[in-house]
Amino acid sequence: MTAGKPIECMAAVAWEAEKPLDVTTVIVAPPQKGEVRIKIVATALCHTDAYTLDGHDPEGLFPAILGHEAAGIVESVGEGVTSVKEGDHVIPCYQAFCGECGMCKSNKTNLCGKVRAWTGKGIMAADSKTRFTHKESGKEIFHFMGTSTFAEYTVVHEVSVAKISKEAKLDKVCLLGCGVTTGLGAVLQTARVEKGSTAAVFGLGTIGLAVVDALRDVGAKRIIGVDTDPNKFERAKEWGATDLVNPKDHDKPIQEVIVEMTNDDGIGGVDYSFECIGNVEVMRAALECCHKGWGQSVVIGVAASGKEISTRPFQLVTGRVWRGTAFGGYKSRIDVPKLVDRYMAGEFRVDEYVTHTLKLKEINQAFDLLHAGKSLRCVMYTDK
Amino acid sequence: MTAGKPIECMAAVAWEAEKPLDVTTVIVAPPQKGEVRIKIVATALCHTDAYTLDGHDPEGLFPAILGHEAAGIVESVGEGVTSVKEGDHVIPCYQAFCGECGMCKSNKTNLCGKVRAWTGKGIMAADSKTRFTHKESGKEIFHFMGTSTFAEYTVVHEVSVAKISKEAKLDKVCLLGCGVTTGLGAVLQTARVEKGSTAAVFGLGTIGLAVVDALRDVGAKRIIGVDTDPNKFERAKEWGATDLVNPKDHDKPIQEVIVEMTNDDGIGGVDYSFECIGNVEVMRAALECCHKGWGQSVVIGVAASGKEISTRPFQLVTGRVWRGTAFGGYKSRIDVPKLVDRYMAGEFRVDEYVTHTLKLKEINQAFDLLHAGKSLRCVMYTDK
Repeated sequence: MTAGKPIECMAAVAWEAEKPLDVTTVIVAPPQKGEVRIKIVATALCHTDAYTLDGHDPEGLFPAILGHEAAGIVESVGEGVTSVKEGDHVIPCYQAFCGECGMCKSNKTNLCGKVRAWTGKGIMAADSKTRFTHKESGKEIFHFMGTSTFAEYTVVHEVSVAKISKEAKLDKVCLLGCGVTTGLGAVLQTARVEKGSTAAVFGLGTIGLAVVDALRDVGAKRIIGVDTDPNKFERAKEWGATDLVNPKDHDKPIQEVIVEMTNDDGIGGVDYSFECIGNVEVMRAALECCHKGWGQSVVIGVAASGKEISTRPFQLVTGRVWRGTAFGGYKSRIDVPKLVDRYMAGEFRVDEYVTHTLKLKEINQAFDLLHAGKSLRCVMYTDK
Repeated sequence: MTAGKPIECMAAVAWEAEKPLDVTTVIVAPPQKGEVRIKIVATALCHTDAYTLDGHDPEGLFPAILGHEAAGIVESVGEGVTSVKEGDHVIPCYQAFCGECGMCKSNKTNLCGKVRAWTGKGIMAADSKTRFTHKESGKEIFHFMGTSTFAEYTVVHEVSVAKISKEAKLDKVCLLGCGVTTGLGAVLQTARVEKGSTAAVFGLGTIGLAVVDALRDVGAKRIIGVDTDPNKFERAKEWGATDLVNPKDHDKPIQEVIVEMTNDDGIGGVDYSFECIGNVEVMRAALECCHKGWGQSVVIGVAASGKEISTRPFQLVTGRVWRGTAFGGYKSRIDVPKLVDRYMAGEFRVDEYVTHTLKLKEINQAFDLLHAGKSLRCVMYTDK
């Protein structure tokens, strides 16, 4: 029985930006009111972790325990927690769902703001403190995105915990904590793409592939994958892309190339486009390759701080729509368990994104793989 | 009987940019295949006419007969025309509706492109020629927006003619040829604002007031009118604005002012915003004053050529939607007659926008009133 007591365990601590993580021992305090302590079983590395570690996140705090794409088992719960109990299998969700606020009650958004004020500062709502202490130095360590999954144990707010089926493989469904869910939701929840549509997908990493997977699933008749790395084309084709374009192969802007490729009606342009990179120039291209009158472009990628998107307003006046999505528009605690069930029913891919596995203590190798563009998802196990 | 013969009549010719119009005699050729010759009864002046005359329209052609907000009576029709006949009351529509193309068949757009290639060049589709000749010099004069209503007679494509009730006052419903229709449609057709919504309207000219009128009609609970000219506030209040804001009265950006005004839920921002000016900085403010998670901003104003809109992509990723509208999203030949009927049933204002009346030959005075910001709509009669 560890409930109610601090737990000493291994964690990968980011002491400062642009330095490798330090695999060390931390003390994880017991969950307070409205909190859940989770034994992380598997955690993957996502670009947002690298973005913060590389110092690009203006809100990035150090020292911190990064990580936000994971699955685990509830170790214990704090006062008043009713939605999960010890032994439940869960996915920590960086996007909370309280079910009570205006955002949660609206059917137009998933952006619950209940604990945002605290998670943005790396602390917990109950007492505005952190639950992580470095054993050796006694230093307090901040939480990250309300999840901090690069640790054997973490503490999160109850509103950030999705309870899932015990049948699901935790080392696979961890990916539903961010990337795969975001890509699927951009198509199914945010854009609500109809059968027979045409689409362009910019960036063929995990999110872009999940977008392709969802587009194929809804019956898009044309799925144009765009990437400057042709090594990504074979997999995208396997996922369902019907056309693959490398902007480097063309002298003209990629938006013009796509408009010409889809010009059966004399107007050209795709019904939907998805930006899965985080590059503001690509976001513009994604909007401008949309069909006049109805084309919708969805921004999924996170741009570097200070960067701005721009276009001529004529693009909008002539009927294009520019929107974005976070966590695929899914209401985390409600929708993630359903996505886990749908994955187990074979509705979409998850296993296939896992290109590498490591032990958590080898996490710096995962960052190397990511930066080298060699991995889709590297899943790390916490058992030593 | 003038059918089949050229008609000599008065027209206001724009010989070149930035010069007053020349009220002179032109020869209007008979309508060719698929064309309709209309006796204009009343025509109003809209900002787009001034925009072109002032040389801001990169596609502006001279010499031309401007004018696109008018109503009249069919004088004769060309070969194959079946939807209207001599004596029908009509509104020429710069946005065509052919009913056959992909755009017309889609329920997502009103941007029929059937005759766009010709109207953009100031000529007619049947023979790629103009129907206007200057009597004195013999010079050919271009059409404008496929309407050219600053003349006693004009020739337009059949696809650009909306047949309306003979009961409607032509010197009032002419406004449904552009401004009022655009404002109403932005709310009712493009944004589809729900009862109880909050909204901000930037620019309280004719289009902005029509937006306010439609917002009040659908039951928006809060309608924030924004203008740098406080003389426009009284009328906006009468139309239904609940709050009026002058950006000049505030040190902080207007989007922050509006977010604070609507911060009952701790987040702030309006559900819908409408840009009715054509200023790219205001378009940005209109987007950024929208509520996180679901706020939609509709661009209605036409920006000067070369101008671009911009924002941080975070605005979209956190749920705001940026879109635009042209002719309010209405399918012209289908919807304009219905709008005329609804106006006659008292559903929305039209008469109230007519602040001045003149004779067509006095048209340069109308431009002066417009530039001085003194008029909403100046309606000009063609009878001498």
